[in-house]
Amino acid sequence: MEDIIQVKYALDTFYFLVCGALVMWMAAGFAMLEAGLVRSKNTTEILTKNIALYAIACTMYLLCGYTIMYGGSEGGILPDAWFGNGVSDASVEDVLASNGDIYYSGSSDFFFQVVFVATAMSIVSGAVAERMKLWTFLAFAIVMTGVIYPLQGMWKWGGGFLDAAGFSDFAGSGVVHMCGAAAALAGVLLLGARKGKYGAGGQVNAIPGANLPLATLGTFILWMGWFGFNGGSELMVSNIDEANATAQVFVNTNAAASGGLIAALLVARILFGKADLTMALNGALAGLVAITAEPLTPGPMAATLIGAVGGVIVVFSILALDKIKIDDPVGAISVHGVVGFWGLMAVPLTNSDASFGAQLYGAAIIFAWVFGASLVVWSILKVVMGLRVTEEEEYEGVDLSECGMEAYPEFTNK
Amino acid sequence: MEDIIQVKYALDTFYFLVCGALVMWMAAGFAMLEAGLVRSKNTTEILTKNIALYAIACTMYLLCGYTIMYGGSEGGILPDAWFGNGVSDASVEDVLASNGDIYYSGSSDFFFQVVFVATAMSIVSGAVAERMKLWTFLAFAIVMTGVIYPLQGMWKWGGGFLDAAGFSDFAGSGVVHMCGAAAALAGVLLLGARKGKYGAGGQVNAIPGANLPLATLGTFILWMGWFGFNGGSELMVSNIDEANATAQVFVNTNAAASGGLIAALLVARILFGKADLTMALNGALAGLVAITAEPLTPGPMAATLIGAVGGVIVVFSILALDKIKIDDPVGAISVHGVVGFWGLMAVPLTNSDASFGAQLYGAAIIFAWVFGASLVVWSILKVVMGLRVTEEEEYEGVDLSECGMEAYPEFTNK
Amino acid sequence: MEDIIQVKYALDTFYFLVCGALVMWMAAGFAMLEAGLVRSKNTTEILTKNIALYAIACTMYLLCGYTIMYGGSEGGILPDAWFGNGVSDASVEDVLASNGDIYYSGSSDFFFQVVFVATAMSIVSGAVAERMKLWTFLAFAIVMTGVIYPLQGMWKWGGGFLDAAGFSDFAGSGVVHMCGAAAALAGVLLLGARKGKYGAGGQVNAIPGANLPLATLGTFILWMGWFGFNGGSELMVSNIDEANATAQVFVNTNAAASGGLIAALLVARILFGKADLTMALNGALAGLVAITAEPLTPGPMAATLIGAVGGVIVVFSILALDKIKIDDPVGAISVHGVVGFWGLMAVPLTNSDASFGAQLYGAAIIFAWVFGASLVVWSILKVVMGLRVTEEEEYEGVDLSECGMEAYPEFTNK
Repeated sequence: MEDIIQVKYALDTFYFLVCGALVMWMAAGFAMLEAGLVRSKNTTEILTKNIALYAIACTMYLLCGYTIMYGGSEGGILPDAWFGNGVSDASVEDVLASNGDIYYSGSSDFFFQVVFVATAMSIVSGAVAERMKLWTFLAFAIVMTGVIYPLQGMWKWGGGFLDAAGFSDFAGSGVVHMCGAAAALAGVLLLGARKGKYGAGGQVNAIPGANLPLATLGTFILWMGWFGFNGGSELMVSNIDEANATAQVFVNTNAAASGGLIAALLVARILFGKADLTMALNGALAGLVAITAEPLTPGPMAATLIGAVGGVIVVFSILALDKIKIDDPVGAISVHGVVGFWGLMAVPLTNSDASFGAQLYGAAIIFAWVFGASLVVWSILKVVMGLRVTEEEEYEGVDLSECGMEAYPEFTNK
Repeated sequence: MEDIIQVKYALDTFYFLVCGALVMWMAAGFAMLEAGLVRSKNTTEILTKNIALYAIACTMYLLCGYTIMYGGSEGGILPDAWFGNGVSDASVEDVLASNGDIYYSGSSDFFFQVVFVATAMSIVSGAVAERMKLWTFLAFAIVMTGVIYPLQGMWKWGGGFLDAAGFSDFAGSGVVHMCGAAAALAGVLLLGARKGKYGAGGQVNAIPGANLPLATLGTFILWMGWFGFNGGSELMVSNIDEANATAQVFVNTNAAASGGLIAALLVARILFGKADLTMALNGALAGLVAITAEPLTPGPMAATLIGAVGGVIVVFSILALDKIKIDDPVGAISVHGVVGFWGLMAVPLTNSDASFGAQLYGAAIIFAWVFGASLVVWSILKVVMGLRVTEEEEYEGVDLSECGMEAYPEFTNK
Repeated sequence: MEDIIQVKYALDTFYFLVCGALVMWMAAGFAMLEAGLVRSKNTTEILTKNIALYAIACTMYLLCGYTIMYGGSEGGILPDAWFGNGVSDASVEDVLASNGDIYYSGSSDFFFQVVFVATAMSIVSGAVAERMKLWTFLAFAIVMTGVIYPLQGMWKWGGGFLDAAGFSDFAGSGVVHMCGAAAALAGVLLLGARKGKYGAGGQVNAIPGANLPLATLGTFILWMGWFGFNGGSELMVSNIDEANATAQVFVNTNAAASGGLIAALLVARILFGKADLTMALNGALAGLVAITAEPLTPGPMAATLIGAVGGVIVVFSILALDKIKIDDPVGAISVHGVVGFWGLMAVPLTNSDASFGAQLYGAAIIFAWVFGASLVVWSILKVVMGLRVTEEEEYEGVDLSECGMEAYPEFTNK
């Protein structure tokens, strides 16, 4: 019997680690997606932002975020033993005595959670691309990953008041994706649109991304990583019921992405007459975001439809945001924010434990907190460091002004 | 005892999910490989085809393919409960009562199988690149992944007549790779060569790929994903014998790819005097295809040699197809078809349960069915939608005509 | 009880295979990193070198390396049954009778070890980029992966005299990374700097990499693969203590990379006034190399600091090597050699079983052997095949002279 407990503990821990590594991989996906969708003169900078924010998120979540989100009740913000074993793992005796309550390594949980924070922050970087100051962005990342995200995460996943209110969010359509989008929206509103994006007569100028294979690679990476994101959020795999549930989550995640892609491809075909690759990519991501709030209870065909609705929404949302001159170069606010909200609202369709009221309440609270807090932080940063590069720097590209090097020094034919 | 059964079930399910995620990743590999080997003006389109065919394959296999391939005997084409739990998972009681017959989640099996379909279809997209209409290709993908592939898959892996005849195909040199190549060949024959590929005097004009780092990345992705493709096809890992077998498959898969790469690199060196990267990449893939029919019974040195023979074959096959003016921009028919046949024929060399007669029989049946059925479908599509873009569209690149956007708008120096 | 042993064996084997697949993936990471940091005219060649060295490493380690490193005591260099089962796996009876001594498949161990060899060799390719003859490099790879690496590996991990001397190297800061860097340094010294790198007046000319998204992708891939590299080096996961340890290794590996990136970004900011992406990437890799010698005993905050020191060192090391005109286009000697040494020296800071003396001794022995043996082999190759391409070939780019094809035929604006 003790042997079984040990093997199950090992399997659940290993499952967390594998899923966590897949979520970490999503950081590469965001980096490639965003690098492919901006212009070549702004590519080095967005790469720098993406990999640096990942490092900052991991460090800040270790310093205080994890404690705020999950450990607040047991002590102060600082863990006891950073220089010893900072994420305390249970001893064999503790595990055996816990009656199944402790069934995986605390370190593996930290690893899984820390890569989630980075995901939320990655969403922001795309929306503010091509005009924000790099160091201002990184300063925001410190506050976002250290405080803003963990606090609302605690309200739901840390057993806080949103959880008590019946708000349901399996893997984070709200807690991660809408959260990231809300922070992005606050930044974009203060920052304004890129020069030349919106013409005098109300026309919207397309600014094509420089490298679509990169953007496609990024989408494939995100799709793959999402198996860890949603699949790991089942939190256990080591018995028949949990294994079935985890498998169901994998199937539904894949189905929703497929549905989202097909729907966006068809809608774009109807609207624009062509097979619009960037809309198709955003459709796949929208399908993934949509299913994230509840990837367990739908059957795979229902999951396909939930994703497909996400794919339809994202196309219209991107067009609508451009209408009201909210300039989001990669469509992050639509994919993660608008469709994240759809994902939350879709939960009660298949999960009878959820209610539209509680979902609306949770969405409103998360949005209000993250948007409000972000607006304050961005505003302070605007005064202290400045948000936006100069017009000349924007024209020349932020790669030179912020990073001092071009991403493709031999290729561009300017 | 029941606890052990539960843990084993969980481990085998998790193993399926991890291997399935690796096979899903191969879709990204095909996309990058093909995007790297076509010209820049046809890159957006091939990316769109690759990611869209993956979504279509997943949806069609859910709608009917899986039922045709594995569930035909138990009912009609439609699963009972799409909107509930469409891929029925056994209850704890069923599993415990099954005496080991049910040892993993049905959903995890669906997930593993669904990514295989996409692989077969990915093979087609490269061969018809740079001149086929995008929507025609996607229409073919619907039939291929919904019917053509599942039916021959049922004959072998669904316990059909090819299986009964002693045909041996561990992970799909025939069922997946030769199948994809046969469908591709039918398309290419109806489609014709790219303009300018074959000169009047019988000379063959090289059309270099636009982005070799992408092609190399794609090959590495496929190499990695193949560990899931072959390793997962052992179908069980949870005891000593199965764990040993799975490990052997990983080792042999890696060895065969290495052998194929080295052989192709050396043959190309002898023929052309240079280290031909694209031949080396195709050699690695040929090694992988060659070992796929039987990655378990050879020792790793034999696996290296089986792969190496594949690497030699692929170079000569690519040259031969160009001689008879079959234009395959990425070498897919050679890699997956010709070498897939070699893989099937190599099985009896190390596996005494297989016979050359049964292998030849299986290969002939699969080829005849897939090639014939595909020829019919492509022909119907030719009449209804047209197969080929106009000469002007081909000259301008299908990115503009089919997708309305360039893959590298700032780079190309035309 | 027997059932438990079987499941544990299966879990540990599967863990090895998953970690091994992640380490294999690092080969793609090195290929992308190096392809991104060289000029476009030398890109095809470095891709060819990277994927070919992987295949050579796998084949040579199978032919003799693994036997030298781990099997020398049990027989000759050649395994008994290459064409049967070359990496002997224990039978069920052996495992059950072994009292836990045999707890995973020997084939899975071979798979995990073989991908390590390729990592060591990948380090060399970047340092000698843009001027070495391709076939000379591949000839060196044969000796390095077949003999030089396995012999020093045996001294430590094969239970040799370095292990007996108390030298501590968990996952290979010395055995893998410093080893690769020592071989690279010997090559670079004989090869000389690239034309135009060092000016007459002592000035150092920056030669920017052609494709920074690729370099960033490569870094993300390496970061991800390192979870397998370090995490798998715990060698067991199947009970509570081992699962906790493996999780701790994952957390620390991630923390050290984050610390390295942040530190290098800040140091570069102070020195150059900009957010230097390539220094940040090297900082992340330096953090990973630094923690590799001991990723288990530090707490995650200490791991962050160990990585951060690595990130500081790497910036100054790169500048210092340029001062003394050691031309290493990708910074491999600094990242893997200098920081690898730091990693070894950092072990006693958190692991009381290690001593500075033993660490220094081990580092000296490894460096002396690998550097000395490599110098001899490079010198012989210089006479027999020549090390360096002609000046004209270097000017035109080695892609044309060595591979006969351009990496980006449509992009470069020369």
